[in-house]
Amino acid sequence: VSSQLFDGVFGTTAVVAATDDAAIIDALCEAETALARACTRAGVIELPAALEIAAACDAVRRTDPADLARRSVSGGNPVIPLVAQLRGYLDERDARDAARAVHFGATSQDILDTALMLVASRALGVIVADLAECGSAIARLAAEHRDTPMSARTLLQQAVATSFGALATVWGTGIDGAASRLRTVRDALPVQLGGAAGTLAPLHPHGLAIRAAFADELDLADPQRVWHGDRTPITELAGALGSAAAALGKVAGDIVLLAQSEVGELREGAPGGSSSMAHKQNAIAAVTARAAAAQAPGLVATLLAAGSPELQRGAGSWHAEWPALIALLRFVGGAASRLWVCLGGLSVDVEAMRANLARLDGSVDIDDLGHAADLVDRYLERRAP
Amino acid sequence: VSSQLFDGVFGTTAVVAATDDAAIIDALCEAETALARACTRAGVIELPAALEIAAACDAVRRTDPADLARRSVSGGNPVIPLVAQLRGYLDERDARDAARAVHFGATSQDILDTALMLVASRALGVIVADLAECGSAIARLAAEHRDTPMSARTLLQQAVATSFGALATVWGTGIDGAASRLRTVRDALPVQLGGAAGTLAPLHPHGLAIRAAFADELDLADPQRVWHGDRTPITELAGALGSAAAALGKVAGDIVLLAQSEVGELREGAPGGSSSMAHKQNAIAAVTARAAAAQAPGLVATLLAAGSPELQRGAGSWHAEWPALIALLRFVGGAASRLWVCLGGLSVDVEAMRANLARLDGSVDIDDLGHAADLVDRYLERRAP
Amino acid sequence: VSSQLFDGVFGTTAVVAATDDAAIIDALCEAETALARACTRAGVIELPAALEIAAACDAVRRTDPADLARRSVSGGNPVIPLVAQLRGYLDERDARDAARAVHFGATSQDILDTALMLVASRALGVIVADLAECGSAIARLAAEHRDTPMSARTLLQQAVATSFGALATVWGTGIDGAASRLRTVRDALPVQLGGAAGTLAPLHPHGLAIRAAFADELDLADPQRVWHGDRTPITELAGALGSAAAALGKVAGDIVLLAQSEVGELREGAPGGSSSMAHKQNAIAAVTARAAAAQAPGLVATLLAAGSPELQRGAGSWHAEWPALIALLRFVGGAASRLWVCLGGLSVDVEAMRANLARLDGSVDIDDLGHAADLVDRYLERRAP
Amino acid sequence: VSSQLFDGVFGTTAVVAATDDAAIIDALCEAETALARACTRAGVIELPAALEIAAACDAVRRTDPADLARRSVSGGNPVIPLVAQLRGYLDERDARDAARAVHFGATSQDILDTALMLVASRALGVIVADLAECGSAIARLAAEHRDTPMSARTLLQQAVATSFGALATVWGTGIDGAASRLRTVRDALPVQLGGAAGTLAPLHPHGLAIRAAFADELDLADPQRVWHGDRTPITELAGALGSAAAALGKVAGDIVLLAQSEVGELREGAPGGSSSMAHKQNAIAAVTARAAAAQAPGLVATLLAAGSPELQRGAGSWHAEWPALIALLRFVGGAASRLWVCLGGLSVDVEAMRANLARLDGSVDIDDLGHAADLVDRYLERRAP
Repeated sequence: VSSQLFDGVFGTTAVVAATDDAAIIDALCEAETALARACTRAGVIELPAALEIAAACDAVRRTDPADLARRSVSGGNPVIPLVAQLRGYLDERDARDAARAVHFGATSQDILDTALMLVASRALGVIVADLAECGSAIARLAAEHRDTPMSARTLLQQAVATSFGALATVWGTGIDGAASRLRTVRDALPVQLGGAAGTLAPLHPHGLAIRAAFADELDLADPQRVWHGDRTPITELAGALGSAAAALGKVAGDIVLLAQSEVGELREGAPGGSSSMAHKQNAIAAVTARAAAAQAPGLVATLLAAGSPELQRGAGSWHAEWPALIALLRFVGGAASRLWVCLGGLSVDVEAMRANLARLDGSVDIDDLGHAADLVDRYLERRAP
Repeated sequence: VSSQLFDGVFGTTAVVAATDDAAIIDALCEAETALARACTRAGVIELPAALEIAAACDAVRRTDPADLARRSVSGGNPVIPLVAQLRGYLDERDARDAARAVHFGATSQDILDTALMLVASRALGVIVADLAECGSAIARLAAEHRDTPMSARTLLQQAVATSFGALATVWGTGIDGAASRLRTVRDALPVQLGGAAGTLAPLHPHGLAIRAAFADELDLADPQRVWHGDRTPITELAGALGSAAAALGKVAGDIVLLAQSEVGELREGAPGGSSSMAHKQNAIAAVTARAAAAQAPGLVATLLAAGSPELQRGAGSWHAEWPALIALLRFVGGAASRLWVCLGGLSVDVEAMRANLARLDGSVDIDDLGHAADLVDRYLERRAP
Repeated sequence: VSSQLFDGVFGTTAVVAATDDAAIIDALCEAETALARACTRAGVIELPAALEIAAACDAVRRTDPADLARRSVSGGNPVIPLVAQLRGYLDERDARDAARAVHFGATSQDILDTALMLVASRALGVIVADLAECGSAIARLAAEHRDTPMSARTLLQQAVATSFGALATVWGTGIDGAASRLRTVRDALPVQLGGAAGTLAPLHPHGLAIRAAFADELDLADPQRVWHGDRTPITELAGALGSAAAALGKVAGDIVLLAQSEVGELREGAPGGSSSMAHKQNAIAAVTARAAAAQAPGLVATLLAAGSPELQRGAGSWHAEWPALIALLRFVGGAASRLWVCLGGLSVDVEAMRANLARLDGSVDIDDLGHAADLVDRYLERRAP
Repeated sequence: VSSQLFDGVFGTTAVVAATDDAAIIDALCEAETALARACTRAGVIELPAALEIAAACDAVRRTDPADLARRSVSGGNPVIPLVAQLRGYLDERDARDAARAVHFGATSQDILDTALMLVASRALGVIVADLAECGSAIARLAAEHRDTPMSARTLLQQAVATSFGALATVWGTGIDGAASRLRTVRDALPVQLGGAAGTLAPLHPHGLAIRAAFADELDLADPQRVWHGDRTPITELAGALGSAAAALGKVAGDIVLLAQSEVGELREGAPGGSSSMAHKQNAIAAVTARAAAAQAPGLVATLLAAGSPELQRGAGSWHAEWPALIALLRFVGGAASRLWVCLGGLSVDVEAMRANLARLDGSVDIDDLGHAADLVDRYLERRAP
């Protein structure tokens, strides 16, 4: 595995487990199994053949990624050798009908796009759960510090008084909004099924029914169209992940700023040390959340640029999506995971907030923060079930 | 004006008119007027003062952009000098109450964010209209060429037979989806109103009512929150524009490929010439649509990177949004405009499609494209009102 | 891209003057003139014809950009109508030989690429001068504060003692390095001359001599090759501008951080005010320098993505370079200009530095900063002529 | 980033081996060893201690990356636990002096930056070698097809005649230039040594001598400065890799276009098949080279955006460089590797070139391509040793 070393630092461990080679190969096998079952539901494949295909998929799903990688080179994707492997497995067992029925009517992109949507859906499950935890932690901070006065800073200069609760509502609306949008995007992640030319020709006239059943088998959406050449599902996912990264980076960045030695209003529960300075108390979870989130804009740009494939299947742009999408899922998940750690242990120095605010002496009445409290109340109301 | 020279080439003329200096200054003045009216509705400003503010805004909206630009430098945004100019105008006319009431309770970012949302809303009006025209033109092509056989190309190699109508449905779902998503995003574009620290303090306890009225006056959404520090409205708009650019670039790119000399299946109505070759028939509208669309991924990345502002107002990230958002609106609009020109005059060489398909001799039955026709029918049904 | 309104804020005024429509049209005309003179030097065009071409170029260089923009649409670039205009001008004056000799052997891309290199060269002149001023201002700060103790901050936490002079050397090496690299890149900016197919066919066998003379006339480099399809001159320029933006953003960001209310170690000479808070002292020049620099990464990505043109001339990627290159020059220049303003008036609060450092009580000996002083001395030595 | 499955497809296998966890941990250990040796040369550490440190580094370099990853989380980088591990190892062996001397005067960033420069240097060795092979293959094509007529295509329309050799010179100058620039950048890759605050304080007054020796031990450059806060070495490396990716993508893209079914002028030696179409002959090496190259612009943008670290050490921007730099090295190397495979087996259909050119009937004289031959000759001369 090529880079485990930084998985912990960037918090990507959980999403990596949902997006690593084993997860992708699993998803490819699930897609082939689901296609066979969908064909059975449409009467295009006999049930015994579908069952044998399912067994074959189960058998080959623990294939060595490095070996599959080598066999993928000549055709440019892992589906071609995987299908050959499935057919070989079934041929060896004299399951001729099943061997013929494997990958029925499908093209490599059908299986790979579908598998990546499965992988994305599961990764989003992890990401959304972490975002929800972040959102809850922020809501607790907002409630607890509804009336805690602090200085607002605009352009990084002290402005006027606010409350820490009011700042937390800004964090929370960003995080809650990101989670909500990612849930919507996840629920719309579609299967792909079009066949060689994107016309569902080999499945005609059962194509639409098979696609619906295929989606149902995998708990993905039926896209009502072939999207080999219309990458909206990928570009919208990319955009939503990019927005989420920005929202995560915002909170992490604010915590880094408020934890500065000279500000001292926030402090992580387990600040990071240093290889050369014993006294350092780095807001390391927030720092690494920022670093993970900072990977997103470039990766989103890569996916958008890949969003204009040539004719019926992109000559490189399709392939370009795979590593960028996987990396984007991982780093957004990593940022969410690190921020959750950060928020979970965050301590708030109410006295430091008051002391910093006192520099604005006389310019504000820190006892009257009713307006800020109102914002907190409304935010908490909107979050209430 | 700094770069009119390429506006025609990139098709940005119409969106430039909706996003140029005059449009922005107009929007700033409209925002100040609307704020005064909203305060009047809440009983915070007397009606005569609001009327005088409206008149002042009308008077200063033709201010010279270069002059306002110079006066914007010291504070870093045009709202500060514009507000000073409005107050000066009213003071000169002895409208003291109105002078005091100008920009009531607001901060620069309230007015500038709101003005840019107004500008974006209007630019999106132009963009969505052009996308809708592109969508209609594509639907006509799909209907007309429901049964026109052509070769599908995957990885830019001939694959199997499809119909040109089926390819058009792929174009159409991308374009229609982009238009639909941009309409949704446009309807959610919010006003900004938070005051100096984002707590609506100076408007307390009328802040929420004034924000609702402010939104109503400008026909923008009430965001139900202060988003000085939560840039989701910008990052979601950026993502949707990025997706739209990908969909536009897809269609334009396909047309460029199908218009190649050796393919010859499509031809623009008014192909471009050359300064050195009299015989050239460049698919120039499609070429320039691609070029405009290609600006998007980088600009989206800029806006996403700016989406994590520091504390209550970004120290540079806020400012960084302005040119990137304006450029993104212009180039996506430019791509849509150029593609519309391209599609409007597109001629389809049915014989060339057949002749190219014949290279796949024997491998397909070009008389049976019922599957492709089905896709076209369903696409047209979904589009029907 | 057409927005005077923000030119002052982002400091782009001077580079805009070197890159606006008039500057580009001027450069196009200069390129046509220089080509004619180069052909004369090779004996391919008679001197009187070259002189008439030069006069025609002089006459049409004040053409209305909006009008030229309109005439550029059908061919997709401004060279086609400009050449037609030159020929028309000469035909009207019965200068038939000159009319035939205009644009001799060239293609649109020859003239437009060359003109943009001229424009880039001039813009780089402005940018490098501003970088040099920034470098000098930083060197003065380093010398003056060679022994001024301050706290180093790593991961935005106080670390150990350093001197402000030592921090200035980090700023200075970045800025000096950027200036040096941009000078190198500028000196290598080449003319383009290849003719319709990039083979110099119409100029054969004088093509290489004419290209050399063409470069000589314009004080650009002879690329020793045709680069219609090898965009290294653009991608290297983009990379160098991107590096410069990072170096500029670094200094500006540090100043924003050190000017925070709670840190208070630096202060701009003319800090920015606010539309709602009279006491604000924003480090506005640094803030807007950061915002300008933040445009660069996305624009560089756009230019790199455009760096793989199709065959003998890109079908969109070539056109995509124009606005991105112009914007990149402007914003890097803007960042340099704003940073110069910032540095020029920067005041250093030595007492605040000491006071902040005292928080690290006992952990360092602030009287022994000889190591930091050594770094400053060596930096100043390397800068000495 | 952890995905073996696509390594073969994207050609990254060799660069992955130079940049994987084992390679990074090796480099970290080499850096610690070299630092100890450099300190010995300056008389700061006794030789026996340095030898024991070297032995300890040898012993721990096979540490499990997953375990080191877990221990890296709390401090945010792998150097902190690695140093602790080295000290523990030496303490266990009663090598107290050596335990104290480990990591002498250094900070985590010194070791990690240096290790990544070592890794980059080795990865560049692989990349430059592949680029050189590509360059040689292209030069052979240019020589062989010096006089092979083909049609030039501008904006993807046939223009006038050229030779395939002339096109190859454009490919070659791009690839040769990229290799040359990467060699220059590689030779300048520096060690990092600054200590906790970047002042070399703990090594004073031997810091400069130790840094020079440190560079000498590792065969890296002495940067003559501390670059914790001046990321020019990274941003210049990123820019050069981005340029190389563009040059690689250019050649790969041209081959994909010339291999189109309807053009048929080039054909890969081992074209890729399909999971659904037996007759497909995909230019799969070129297609995947494009896909690898397409990752570069976004990754370069990420590295440029990280190039403005906060004060003495970036609070996230430093960490953000690690995955982006590693990915960028891998994908540029992958593109070079895949292109080499593509070029190695490329077959040229001279008859197809002539037949396509004949479509331009009468407009050119294909027997007189002396101008194109001249370009080839000069290109080959410049390449000659």
